[in-house]
Amino acid sequence: MNEFFALGLGVGTVNARGQWLEAYFPEPRHPVPASLAEALGRAVGWRGGNAAVPLDRPRLVALATAAAGSGDRATAELARRCLGSRRQPVLVLLERDEPPASVPEAYLKLHLLSHRLVRPHGLNLQGLFALLPTVAWTADGPVDLEELPERQLRARLEGRLLAVRSVDKFPPMADYVIPKGVRIADTARVRLGAWLGEGTTVMHEGFVNFNAGTEGPNMVEGRISAGVTVGAGSDLGGGSSTMGTLSGGGEIVISVGRDCLIGANAGIGIPLGDRCTVEAGLYVTAGTKVVLLDEEQRPVRTVKARELAGQSDLLFRRNSLTGAVECLTNRKAAALNEALHAHN
Amino acid sequence: MNEFFALGLGVGTVNARGQWLEAYFPEPRHPVPASLAEALGRAVGWRGGNAAVPLDRPRLVALATAAAGSGDRATAELARRCLGSRRQPVLVLLERDEPPASVPEAYLKLHLLSHRLVRPHGLNLQGLFALLPTVAWTADGPVDLEELPERQLRARLEGRLLAVRSVDKFPPMADYVIPKGVRIADTARVRLGAWLGEGTTVMHEGFVNFNAGTEGPNMVEGRISAGVTVGAGSDLGGGSSTMGTLSGGGEIVISVGRDCLIGANAGIGIPLGDRCTVEAGLYVTAGTKVVLLDEEQRPVRTVKARELAGQSDLLFRRNSLTGAVECLTNRKAAALNEALHAHN
Amino acid sequence: MNEFFALGLGVGTVNARGQWLEAYFPEPRHPVPASLAEALGRAVGWRGGNAAVPLDRPRLVALATAAAGSGDRATAELARRCLGSRRQPVLVLLERDEPPASVPEAYLKLHLLSHRLVRPHGLNLQGLFALLPTVAWTADGPVDLEELPERQLRARLEGRLLAVRSVDKFPPMADYVIPKGVRIADTARVRLGAWLGEGTTVMHEGFVNFNAGTEGPNMVEGRISAGVTVGAGSDLGGGSSTMGTLSGGGEIVISVGRDCLIGANAGIGIPLGDRCTVEAGLYVTAGTKVVLLDEEQRPVRTVKARELAGQSDLLFRRNSLTGAVECLTNRKAAALNEALHAHN
Repeated sequence: MNEFFALGLGVGTVNARGQWLEAYFPEPRHPVPASLAEALGRAVGWRGGNAAVPLDRPRLVALATAAAGSGDRATAELARRCLGSRRQPVLVLLERDEPPASVPEAYLKLHLLSHRLVRPHGLNLQGLFALLPTVAWTADGPVDLEELPERQLRARLEGRLLAVRSVDKFPPMADYVIPKGVRIADTARVRLGAWLGEGTTVMHEGFVNFNAGTEGPNMVEGRISAGVTVGAGSDLGGGSSTMGTLSGGGEIVISVGRDCLIGANAGIGIPLGDRCTVEAGLYVTAGTKVVLLDEEQRPVRTVKARELAGQSDLLFRRNSLTGAVECLTNRKAAALNEALHAHN
Repeated sequence: MNEFFALGLGVGTVNARGQWLEAYFPEPRHPVPASLAEALGRAVGWRGGNAAVPLDRPRLVALATAAAGSGDRATAELARRCLGSRRQPVLVLLERDEPPASVPEAYLKLHLLSHRLVRPHGLNLQGLFALLPTVAWTADGPVDLEELPERQLRARLEGRLLAVRSVDKFPPMADYVIPKGVRIADTARVRLGAWLGEGTTVMHEGFVNFNAGTEGPNMVEGRISAGVTVGAGSDLGGGSSTMGTLSGGGEIVISVGRDCLIGANAGIGIPLGDRCTVEAGLYVTAGTKVVLLDEEQRPVRTVKARELAGQSDLLFRRNSLTGAVECLTNRKAAALNEALHAHN
Repeated sequence: MNEFFALGLGVGTVNARGQWLEAYFPEPRHPVPASLAEALGRAVGWRGGNAAVPLDRPRLVALATAAAGSGDRATAELARRCLGSRRQPVLVLLERDEPPASVPEAYLKLHLLSHRLVRPHGLNLQGLFALLPTVAWTADGPVDLEELPERQLRARLEGRLLAVRSVDKFPPMADYVIPKGVRIADTARVRLGAWLGEGTTVMHEGFVNFNAGTEGPNMVEGRISAGVTVGAGSDLGGGSSTMGTLSGGGEIVISVGRDCLIGANAGIGIPLGDRCTVEAGLYVTAGTKVVLLDEEQRPVRTVKARELAGQSDLLFRRNSLTGAVECLTNRKAAALNEALHAHN
């Protein structure tokens, strides 16, 4: 094998029992030449395969020397800086894209997504959820939940309040990386592991889960569930919803193509093609019966929305006089029927 | 009387004029043997009834001694630790469950809820709202609103920014207690006084007000208004809404039974029984006229949703072809009619 | 000219290249006697027009002296306090209400709105958006986005986590000013430049953009988009939406009159007059066809919602049996027709 899947040198947090809570990688890499990864790995006692190697001082020195010897100045410099770290340094080597086997491995993979090195669905996250500990994300950094009450009491007696921002398996992405060219009005609403393309604005009501994201540019005022991807030029209106595979969407993986508009308070339970619009306030689930109208607004047939999955140039609305959910297209009746059959 | 309703030793914040802003109780208790409560109370000059007694050094020493003498090591230890506190120690004794008469009393009651010692609607909160001061919850702890501008200016001149997280009568619960086995993705959205059962996950879009909560396990991606309770196994979809008595729900107390699903962007203005579903995007208010369908999907009659309050095994949807709000059940027409009459 | 439009003495943040990130004005003023503004300006080398003048020690001393000489004790005192500032002091003079030409000018204008000195739409904000830099709002204050990764790495190595609260052009209002008599449950959701009238409560799900706001008293559990204003006594239900001119509302400026109720998860794409109600869950866009009912609930005619823009005493609902969007009024059919014609 000529390449390793990924490599990351970082610092992380362990609890009082020495268990990992999280890890931070300022410069994660994917892919990595095998010769380099092996040289760095051997310097710290790595014995092959995927591994997260905690680094003490001698190992950091050895790593810096090996990195310098391999011409990898960035790693050499970072290893030297880690010599003074008050958090636990760690080197993660992922020879292959296998299910993450440790917290640092899992965090490296989440970094790869948020650093835009790997697209959503582009890596193996099997077992991620069970692997990640629930952490109290406080103003003083990550804290083990069992250690929190004592920390909070001590802070109070010192006249401080140890604010807890989140109690979650995933930290806010912005505490780890802010990719170039994005705005995130309320960072609490974008998890590490989100993939935000350049030109993405996530407004206060927007939300992006891990292994999900936007191609950019995009205006996101709605919720992008785990696994959902949104194409360039598409906007999610305020409070709009995309069903995730974790939250009722079942086995259909939802995606939104390019130049779509999901209206405010609207929602989708099917993937959309390009240039689709869902009217404000309308929720289209896979099972919604939809009256399909052709380019002259004549009814062609009635279908379940799932039959329209992935089609482009659709406009979904609820007829405000009859209450029927309608789907307008810019195609003729014949072409429409053909497209539907092709899809089935 | 053999028992006191509650007791709490804590530390709190007072403003420059000596008025209470809040109080923190690491180990609130309910109920408490009267003999213990009275022994602790007498040590600090308590004269009966419900009271919040500020503790100076002599009183803390006396309290520690009395607690140790009563075999209450936890209180003895906490009292000793409070000797070094930079916040104001306070002992709250609630002989009876009467309307809270001071800020520390009110905070103790909110703690009882969030520590899962008393269920929502299980204690007297009359006058709570008027009693609680609006506080600026800052990175430096609670600050009186009138004192805030000077504090903010001073911080700026020192090169800092005194971030204000909330301006509210209720602080985020997570700054006071995180009950076992819960996740709260964005702690700003769960007020102290919420009751979260084990296995509850409150996602970023979830919200839980005080005197409200979940039995657990539950997935909460919607809003649980004040007074609303949600049974085990029920999920609230993203952006879903439950009407509170404070916000338009009127006098009906909303509750959700077990194993229900409120779809994304849906909402309810009536209490639900068990195993009910409300389709994504549908808001059922008490006055919504609903076509009731039996197990073979035949219309039985048209009723206002309030007549279905508390019934189990209902599925609410809006027919996407006719626009009519329908309610499906797994019961026969005769049984349905009977159930409705019984309810009325 | 006898008056200057505005004046502000404050401190701000510059990045490593000396570019402004933001500025904070504890006591912004509007309007200001020209004689005073000119006296203060001349003391710091101002040469006329709108300007943001950075202040070094000699200029601060000169400003304090000039302010004292003009009887402006507040400015004199603030100038003296700024002598010890670790942030960059700045004096902004706005002779006229022209498009902001610098970051401090833009921030002064946003302050004028949030300090309730100028109403939304009451000042010239042309070019504001392009002028404002996107800033990382961290626990350590505003940080330039390019300087952030190094700052975050350094914090990590020191055993801290530099939490980033927002990556946005606008900071949370509450970090700059909290006007009297308001509550803001989650300050991340009210931008600087919002105008909140006394008695406004913005709940956790509420949101207020810049150049928008509430007359007070108001209960805001929905989203007030840029440019939208809400009259006294009106409530926005949880998750409700108002279309902004930036987000699909087009050229219609949305406003809500007095004593209106926008239900939970509802939305409007038209301005409302007084005493209007939009049923929970109903989204009325400008193009929604609406069946107009008179005071006896008889259909009068069908109109597009935009024809009802600004009318009072309307109740919008979706008939839950027919699916038709209806608008009830308390007027007779003849008066209704007249009102509509008058409007057109």
